[in-house]
Amino acid sequence: MIKKISEEKEKIEKVMRKISLLGIMALLALCTMAQEKKTFTLEDLIPGGKNYYNCSPKNLYGIQWWGDRFIRPDVEEIKSVDPLTGNEESIAKIEDINEILEKADAGKLFHFYEVSFPYAGKPLMRITTTKKNLLLDFVHKEIEWSQDVNQEDENAEWEKNSRCRSFTRGNNLFVTLADGKTVQITDEPAGVKCGQSVHRDEFGITKGTFWSPKGNLLAFYRMDERMVTDYPQVNTSTRIATLEADKYPMAGMTSHKVSIGIFNPATQKTVWLKTADPTDRYFTNISWSPDEKEIYVIELNRDQNHAQLIRYNAITGDKEKVLLEETHPKYVEPQHPLTFLPWDDSKFIYQSQKDGYNHLYLYNTEGKLLKQLTKGNWIVQDLTGFAPKNKEVIILSTEISPLQSNTYAVSTITGKRRPIGNSIGVHQIALSNSGNYLIDRFSAPDIPRIIDILGTKDNATRHIMKADDPWKEYKVPEISVGTIKAADGKTDLYYRLVKPVDFDANKKYPAVIYVYGGPHAQNISATNHYAVRGWDIYMATKGYVMLTVDNRGSSNRGLEFENATFRHLGVEEVKDQMEGEKMLESLPYVDKNRIGIHGWSFGGFMTINLMLTHPEVFKTGVAGGPVIDWKYYEVMYGERYMDTPETNPEGYKGSCLNERAGNLKGHLDIIIGGNDKTVVPQHTFSFLRACIDAGTHPDLFIYPGGAHNMVGRDRVHLHEHITRYFEDYLK
Amino acid sequence: MIKKISEEKEKIEKVMRKISLLGIMALLALCTMAQEKKTFTLEDLIPGGKNYYNCSPKNLYGIQWWGDRFIRPDVEEIKSVDPLTGNEESIAKIEDINEILEKADAGKLFHFYEVSFPYAGKPLMRITTTKKNLLLDFVHKEIEWSQDVNQEDENAEWEKNSRCRSFTRGNNLFVTLADGKTVQITDEPAGVKCGQSVHRDEFGITKGTFWSPKGNLLAFYRMDERMVTDYPQVNTSTRIATLEADKYPMAGMTSHKVSIGIFNPATQKTVWLKTADPTDRYFTNISWSPDEKEIYVIELNRDQNHAQLIRYNAITGDKEKVLLEETHPKYVEPQHPLTFLPWDDSKFIYQSQKDGYNHLYLYNTEGKLLKQLTKGNWIVQDLTGFAPKNKEVIILSTEISPLQSNTYAVSTITGKRRPIGNSIGVHQIALSNSGNYLIDRFSAPDIPRIIDILGTKDNATRHIMKADDPWKEYKVPEISVGTIKAADGKTDLYYRLVKPVDFDANKKYPAVIYVYGGPHAQNISATNHYAVRGWDIYMATKGYVMLTVDNRGSSNRGLEFENATFRHLGVEEVKDQMEGEKMLESLPYVDKNRIGIHGWSFGGFMTINLMLTHPEVFKTGVAGGPVIDWKYYEVMYGERYMDTPETNPEGYKGSCLNERAGNLKGHLDIIIGGNDKTVVPQHTFSFLRACIDAGTHPDLFIYPGGAHNMVGRDRVHLHEHITRYFEDYLK
Repeated sequence: MIKKISEEKEKIEKVMRKISLLGIMALLALCTMAQEKKTFTLEDLIPGGKNYYNCSPKNLYGIQWWGDRFIRPDVEEIKSVDPLTGNEESIAKIEDINEILEKADAGKLFHFYEVSFPYAGKPLMRITTTKKNLLLDFVHKEIEWSQDVNQEDENAEWEKNSRCRSFTRGNNLFVTLADGKTVQITDEPAGVKCGQSVHRDEFGITKGTFWSPKGNLLAFYRMDERMVTDYPQVNTSTRIATLEADKYPMAGMTSHKVSIGIFNPATQKTVWLKTADPTDRYFTNISWSPDEKEIYVIELNRDQNHAQLIRYNAITGDKEKVLLEETHPKYVEPQHPLTFLPWDDSKFIYQSQKDGYNHLYLYNTEGKLLKQLTKGNWIVQDLTGFAPKNKEVIILSTEISPLQSNTYAVSTITGKRRPIGNSIGVHQIALSNSGNYLIDRFSAPDIPRIIDILGTKDNATRHIMKADDPWKEYKVPEISVGTIKAADGKTDLYYRLVKPVDFDANKKYPAVIYVYGGPHAQNISATNHYAVRGWDIYMATKGYVMLTVDNRGSSNRGLEFENATFRHLGVEEVKDQMEGEKMLESLPYVDKNRIGIHGWSFGGFMTINLMLTHPEVFKTGVAGGPVIDWKYYEVMYGERYMDTPETNPEGYKGSCLNERAGNLKGHLDIIIGGNDKTVVPQHTFSFLRACIDAGTHPDLFIYPGGAHNMVGRDRVHLHEHITRYFEDYLK
Repeated sequence: MIKKISEEKEKIEKVMRKISLLGIMALLALCTMAQEKKTFTLEDLIPGGKNYYNCSPKNLYGIQWWGDRFIRPDVEEIKSVDPLTGNEESIAKIEDINEILEKADAGKLFHFYEVSFPYAGKPLMRITTTKKNLLLDFVHKEIEWSQDVNQEDENAEWEKNSRCRSFTRGNNLFVTLADGKTVQITDEPAGVKCGQSVHRDEFGITKGTFWSPKGNLLAFYRMDERMVTDYPQVNTSTRIATLEADKYPMAGMTSHKVSIGIFNPATQKTVWLKTADPTDRYFTNISWSPDEKEIYVIELNRDQNHAQLIRYNAITGDKEKVLLEETHPKYVEPQHPLTFLPWDDSKFIYQSQKDGYNHLYLYNTEGKLLKQLTKGNWIVQDLTGFAPKNKEVIILSTEISPLQSNTYAVSTITGKRRPIGNSIGVHQIALSNSGNYLIDRFSAPDIPRIIDILGTKDNATRHIMKADDPWKEYKVPEISVGTIKAADGKTDLYYRLVKPVDFDANKKYPAVIYVYGGPHAQNISATNHYAVRGWDIYMATKGYVMLTVDNRGSSNRGLEFENATFRHLGVEEVKDQMEGEKMLESLPYVDKNRIGIHGWSFGGFMTINLMLTHPEVFKTGVAGGPVIDWKYYEVMYGERYMDTPETNPEGYKGSCLNERAGNLKGHLDIIIGGNDKTVVPQHTFSFLRACIDAGTHPDLFIYPGGAHNMVGRDRVHLHEHITRYFEDYLK
């Protein structure tokens, strides 16, 4: 097996080398100029478009495991599949379920995509309607258990052992116990949120409630934001516009304070972890010990350069031990809670970038490092679960290529790893309860989507679905991927190049660079069509060359690649993007007098930055939701990369686009959502003011009521708007 | 004399008839294509431009009367002139004044433009510095009297008899007495303003304090706005954006409540007028009786169709009598306080549009009409004062032409009138204390500015200043004025046409209509160059034909002309503007495929309205600070013309541009000030939302921190922005 993987790796490496060597190499030329083919519209290519669904690869929704049986839901019926034999059985039909629900006045089920099967071996389906959260015995066709739910509940989390359900209403936290009784856990004034995600979803935080493994205790976040300044958002859709004050801690300003409570449904008491003073401190990655007696928190200082993994007593809240610490001259960014070995409560896996790449480390609960389980110039992207029979941990990693995600089983004893499934593309996986099987959902440059069931031990494959090419009737441009050198002269950067539809090498085409460029994102990956954006395809149908480069600072390439931008965001990134621009200029079919640039958010910042830094190069740009001055960005993300305006005044000044507003030469359209709570409107307004004062002339568009990204029909309108701007000023 | 005026009138009428007859007739062709002439830039033509001052006709600032002596201030020196002999005397030099001020630690004077001479015959000059309000005896070179002032004082009003000074600090009213003691008159909570202008400056209201004629009492407005909804304005120039809540009563919504207090400095007590319930009621045009015993208020119902002139006892606040009432099926708009005859305290002049034009009516204090003093299809624009020797009232009127303002003396006994000064152009006048002289400041189409002193009795003229043509070195386009028929087929509308510089009749030019179109404004008048806008001239230098038409609804043409738009703003106005557009299309040198439109405020409303009503006609438009939906406009102005959204739902719907957002075809740029408190940003945001939802594509620009109109350097940037838009999309 190991041999096989090496062979495959070698093959891939050859291919990758070839890409680098050739610079530009068409890996894909799905189809060309057959006259009967259709031309894409934005309705086909943009989420929210009327034909977008038909132009997206087929998918299966709600597929999951019930023990080791594969569950395949549909609107009318839900089936289970034996992964060994492939035998399919109907579990239930919607009319039968609704008959049972109706009798019990328990609401209605509209489809099976959101039901779940919490107990392996037990024929219980969990259904949540507008009225009830219930367990339905689909063999005996009866409701086994239920509790009331309320339409206003938010952040609901149900725990299958205790059958307690936590939820928030307004800013407070509640629990409905298994017997149906609802307990209010917190009674905080406005400005203090309980049971919700904290620290603006940084540090891997996505929620605010954490049931213990057996369901006996509920850990939850409490965030006091009363000392944080409001950003005055305005809702203009009411009869008269109304204020929607939004707590927004800006870089260097007073931040919120977070604490962690543990509620015990048996005693109905809450204890609070006796952490250090929560002022200027982050509490991240809450993890329970398997026996529920202890709770682990990774604490981080406001400077984000000193993390401590601390164990607390879950009953008393007492601090027990600092298990390990991480420091870094730039920043430490804990993003993963501990994962205990299912077969040994005294050992857990800790993830760290301390050797430059995110890897797995096996520790015991006294904080002793037992083994670095993975190592190499690649990244563990996900610790999905375990195959306990072999004492293996199942991961996704970039080992084959930074553009890919592939599955491996890693021995927790030897650290040896073996691949599961193929070595191409980008995989998402879901392990069965035993760890013997996994759902393998993947795509590759020439594979729209395949869903298989794999045996984790033997790689035995059962095909579930293969999506047809949804673009087969359309004129699809040539999409190629390769690498160029970064501005440092040594680092490889991936680019993706899209040639115009009906490409004619003797013509001169305008070109647009689409850029993001910020941390935690990667624009090019080995998914279908190399993750090309629908708008890139649309522009290619209109005769534009489209280029994207993932510069230093972007994700999946390791810590050094990412933190090269520390304290001066936008400087190295711009240099790297200019290497892409040089490549564009070198292409004989690109008109170097018609080079445009477009990006959103960090990419909006990059767009304006590039236009101000190289006004002679970029004729036209469209910047969406741009950061203009990092001092207007929030504390958690902003200070990680930039420190504070007080401790890094030169860095802030150097990154501040207002300083260079007078450099604007080309046509620049800035687009924002009127209620962007991520990159607040102040960024764009400060830049407009700076341009007006400097006598330069940007353009502007606002989506009233829009957030940081436009969704639904607005997104189609947005891309029509963007396209019109390039058609007016670049073509 | 009377004969002479008739002759002159006949002459003028002939000219006006000729204009109507010919349709287009160049009255002005100041200069043409001499090659050495300069080309205008925006810096020359736009207020805020670096050369704007040099390109504006010379003016004299701070000229005034001291008794019957003409005062001519300058920076270094101030002089008085005998209007009879022309003898000039130096009153004071700045260094001498500052020596006196310095000795008294009374601040510093930087120029003489803002000093005044309150007492005829007494050598006292009133000076207000940052420290003192004082009377300086410029003969004896000493400070005769002074009181402290504070930099934070606002709305200060000094009364020369009592030497009391009222002012506001925050929302409360104070008076500093002659002896220097300061009394706080009101102590109201936030949300209640005292001593400031009320009712959003409608109904002729411009201030909030009204000293009685002898200075013994102070009437003042109190406005309770606590029940009015806030419009959440946002200041984005602070470290983090801040809310600036602004009380804004929108049409049909709850409005403020106004009351009138009378403060007596002697007793230091305030009495309140016992008016009707101030809910939904306007108290306007406060006037004192000459003996200070009574005070007159014109009360108006919220519907604005019933006005009452009511007399109150100024000592008790009791209501004494309703002197007269005015009703109208559309609206009544009182805009002028009473003016008592200086020689007879029992008679006053009341102004009314009740016969269709604003005219003067002589009443006695019992409310008996004694005589309609003026009558005709023209308007009394200003009641400036009196020439008591002849028992004459001095007015400005449009009798000669709706484009002009000329001076007349009207006998209060016979009603006969005689002209003072010439019969051309637009005059502004200031009467000397005796009424024997007036300062006559005027301009005419070919006269940049002339300032004369006239004898009110004999028209004896002493020339003070004649401004050179500030445009003589520039290429000035041909500007002509004429009339067309309104859409009703009968009413004459004035238009102004500007041909491109270096006009060539064989070429085809793009054309732009500049429109305002709302009440209380007139774009075309017989001032220099027919009041052409600097931007029109600029566009003419860039090769555009520029047209402006004053449609029905605009001012100086009488009530019926104005109120034709009642309850359906924008409907008749659009029809009339299209008559102008048809004329443009009829011009052989206008390219009818390149017709654009631009306007601000009501003109922004008109611009969008025209583009949505006639999308096939207008290729490009720029709308500034546009009203979109009258329900978002304020109560006082909005309900006068539109009633309420509840009582006139069809009118509001018909005028609402959002209803027709899907009609947008051409390029439309909308520009607003980010903090427009007059036409709040909600208008534009609602329209953007409607367009996005309808799939149409307007453009947008915002001046952060900008108010309803851009001023200073922003105004130059704005016109560059507007010009770029037409150059990009119309040329």
